[in-house]
Amino acid sequence: MKKIIALFVVLCSMNTIAQSTSQHDSLTLRKLYDMSLLNGQSYAWLDHLSNNIGGRLSGSVNAQRAVEYTKAELEKLGLDRVWLQPVMVPKWTRGNPEYAYVQTPGGPSNTVNILALGGSVATPDTGLRAKVIEVQGIEDLARYGREQIEGKIVFFNRPMRADLIHTFEAYGGCVDQRYSGAAEAAKYGAAGVIVRSLSHKIDDYPHTGSMSYGDLPNDKRIPAAAISTKDAEYLSGMLKLNKDLDFYYKMNCRNFEDVESYNVIGEIKGSERPEEIIVVGGHLDSWDVGDGSHDDGAGVVQSMEVLRLFKETGIRPKRTIRVVLFMNEENGLRGGNKYAEIAGKNKENHIFALESDAGGFTPRGFSFDARDSQFEKIQSWKPHFEPYLIHYFARGSSGADIGPLKNGSTVLAGLRPDSQRYFDHHHAATDTFDAVNKRELELGAATMASLVYLVDKYGFDGIQNDPEILK
Amino acid sequence: MKKIIALFVVLCSMNTIAQSTSQHDSLTLRKLYDMSLLNGQSYAWLDHLSNNIGGRLSGSVNAQRAVEYTKAELEKLGLDRVWLQPVMVPKWTRGNPEYAYVQTPGGPSNTVNILALGGSVATPDTGLRAKVIEVQGIEDLARYGREQIEGKIVFFNRPMRADLIHTFEAYGGCVDQRYSGAAEAAKYGAAGVIVRSLSHKIDDYPHTGSMSYGDLPNDKRIPAAAISTKDAEYLSGMLKLNKDLDFYYKMNCRNFEDVESYNVIGEIKGSERPEEIIVVGGHLDSWDVGDGSHDDGAGVVQSMEVLRLFKETGIRPKRTIRVVLFMNEENGLRGGNKYAEIAGKNKENHIFALESDAGGFTPRGFSFDARDSQFEKIQSWKPHFEPYLIHYFARGSSGADIGPLKNGSTVLAGLRPDSQRYFDHHHAATDTFDAVNKRELELGAATMASLVYLVDKYGFDGIQNDPEILK
Repeated sequence: MKKIIALFVVLCSMNTIAQSTSQHDSLTLRKLYDMSLLNGQSYAWLDHLSNNIGGRLSGSVNAQRAVEYTKAELEKLGLDRVWLQPVMVPKWTRGNPEYAYVQTPGGPSNTVNILALGGSVATPDTGLRAKVIEVQGIEDLARYGREQIEGKIVFFNRPMRADLIHTFEAYGGCVDQRYSGAAEAAKYGAAGVIVRSLSHKIDDYPHTGSMSYGDLPNDKRIPAAAISTKDAEYLSGMLKLNKDLDFYYKMNCRNFEDVESYNVIGEIKGSERPEEIIVVGGHLDSWDVGDGSHDDGAGVVQSMEVLRLFKETGIRPKRTIRVVLFMNEENGLRGGNKYAEIAGKNKENHIFALESDAGGFTPRGFSFDARDSQFEKIQSWKPHFEPYLIHYFARGSSGADIGPLKNGSTVLAGLRPDSQRYFDHHHAATDTFDAVNKRELELGAATMASLVYLVDKYGFDGIQNDPEILK
Repeated sequence: MKKIIALFVVLCSMNTIAQSTSQHDSLTLRKLYDMSLLNGQSYAWLDHLSNNIGGRLSGSVNAQRAVEYTKAELEKLGLDRVWLQPVMVPKWTRGNPEYAYVQTPGGPSNTVNILALGGSVATPDTGLRAKVIEVQGIEDLARYGREQIEGKIVFFNRPMRADLIHTFEAYGGCVDQRYSGAAEAAKYGAAGVIVRSLSHKIDDYPHTGSMSYGDLPNDKRIPAAAISTKDAEYLSGMLKLNKDLDFYYKMNCRNFEDVESYNVIGEIKGSERPEEIIVVGGHLDSWDVGDGSHDDGAGVVQSMEVLRLFKETGIRPKRTIRVVLFMNEENGLRGGNKYAEIAGKNKENHIFALESDAGGFTPRGFSFDARDSQFEKIQSWKPHFEPYLIHYFARGSSGADIGPLKNGSTVLAGLRPDSQRYFDHHHAATDTFDAVNKRELELGAATMASLVYLVDKYGFDGIQNDPEILK
């Protein structure tokens, strides 16, 4: 009986400790949210990145200005260390003006809105004019064959599915047209490709994005452009009336030699386990159209804000918290690869990496690339997030830049904001500061800081040191 | 043993039935969402209401045009009945132009952005010019007393709290300044009031809204205007420099006799229990600035869409599903009161009413004004909504227009969209069609239709007929 009473007392006191720990965590999260919402810095940083600097394509002057600006801002935060990590990045330039029109035989011509895909070759100096064949995806190329494709412009027009609730899924179902469409169409002798913009919204703004020619020799490379969704609908309608129309476009893009750029890095050294590193980041580069506010200015300033919130609320992390502003996510992922390469060389131990690269919209939760036991631990923290309407904790991909850190033991995570509006802005002239809501941005930063706080406090011990994983 | 086996068989078959019922429900919800997202009508309706009609203040020509338009559109849906329910509404007009400026003694004058509050009296023809006293809320009036207030313009400047996650809570914490500020300040001899706009966003757009003089006699009524948040900050800053500045404003608003208007109603008769009524609605009137897209064009078209989705997907409801487009939510609630009055007179049995009046943003869930047992039943449906990221099922207020239906047995519910952006647009010139995202609007309509479908199918039997409730 005494034993039972003793056990009861122990259990009760454990329970009390657990409760007070949990209460302390709740209060800490509340402090982080309050600081972000009442006295946040993220929106002002984004204002500067977007409105004073603007689009930040890798290798551009603006990308370098963004490197210098964010480094200087991180230095003001009183971190333990701020540095630049050199990385060679591709340099591709658009070379405006670009233009395009549809010409019906003997009829009028109508201009349409296009935007060269990132990495595309230029059209000939006099532009490219050819007949058009509309397809609903790469699969269609084999069906039509060289006979029907050779010499023509292939018009990839499969739209994003509107019935999918997660818009990234709809994006995933179409992005192959943009990324590989030119390489594949070239194999059938196509003269060029035009790809329907990856957006649900029917409007006049074409959406650019990365593409690759794979191992196609230089002389086989054909120009590739995005066409606005509205003009894709128009072109498709015109083709139904007259298959013999001509499409003309002129693009002046150029690929240059790689140039040096930088990942921008800052860190707060851990007080107990400085060798265990937690990364939080976004990518500093953007496309050249719009000002890259959602993609990924938001992720950049939210990541910077995480460290500022730790400093301002007086949280001293046990582990090292590092912000990494990656260069060249959009057209090369060189920054992400370089960061992981150097981390490997230095035998650094990353226990966790979190990326925000899905827009600055109201945060809904996170997706995790983690082992079962790690994910279980994370899920036990979910109740702390309920007051902030953060409900989405799912397995899934994390972020492109932190992907190269994947090693089976590091937990990777991605912030998941509401995704409904994201592709209205993604890679287009509509990705601008005014499309970001201050509160939504700040809620995202606080949500990230909260997760980082819990990971720092509780870690993934016992999981991390599993010999099977360490090998 | 036989009994146990028999019981086991029964339980298994019940389980199978439950599973297949549940599967059927899941498929039905999927059909509703697909129809709304792939072939929805809500966005086109909103386009017309917002862009072809515009702001729809009660008693205005536009309000009447909206009545006629929505009635005609409902008639196209093949409902069992569509009708207008007459209701007398207040008629208040703004009478542009309105203007205001701050004048420092011997210094320059600077215009500021104001908007008369709905129901306010006009300033004198020559405008109102007076010294200003800034207060942080109605509580402050007693502290300053008649001595410091008499003859001055009271400037209510308590801002909405930024740390509250639910923005409606922050609104609730300030709206008394707008609604009762003039009536209260007049008791201390104030010459007029200026109220900080109810928005988190610092910008140039004043936000109007309803106010009341209570039982104040006509000759004691003082003019009341909203001032933009940016100009509230400016005025407050100027007052810190010089308490002796003058504020001048000129408003030409007028109150007229009540005029006749209508609630627009349509219904699908229930196939099994036509006498049990389920209402879904929003309010057709809006303020006169902007075009009332979020408040509450969105709720109107989503409610209409619920009935269309039932028709288009071939769902034959057991109970009567009625859409009600209420008139005069903004400045009188006459439509909501009239609807409940007539329902009472006709001894109609409303089992459920759902309102959408919190903007056309991504739906997060619902709040319910219901008894415990009713709420428990509703919560059992929550898993059906998970694929659509609908997670918020909470007790709380429903909607102003359906409020008068409250009787202790009717379940009242409000759609709860993401609220972060709502007050950037609410009652201001920024409440326009372009601020509504098509997908977000459509997701809201499908979410409402899904809940209505489940309520219709399962009802609240046993709860509704509780003798304690029926008395």
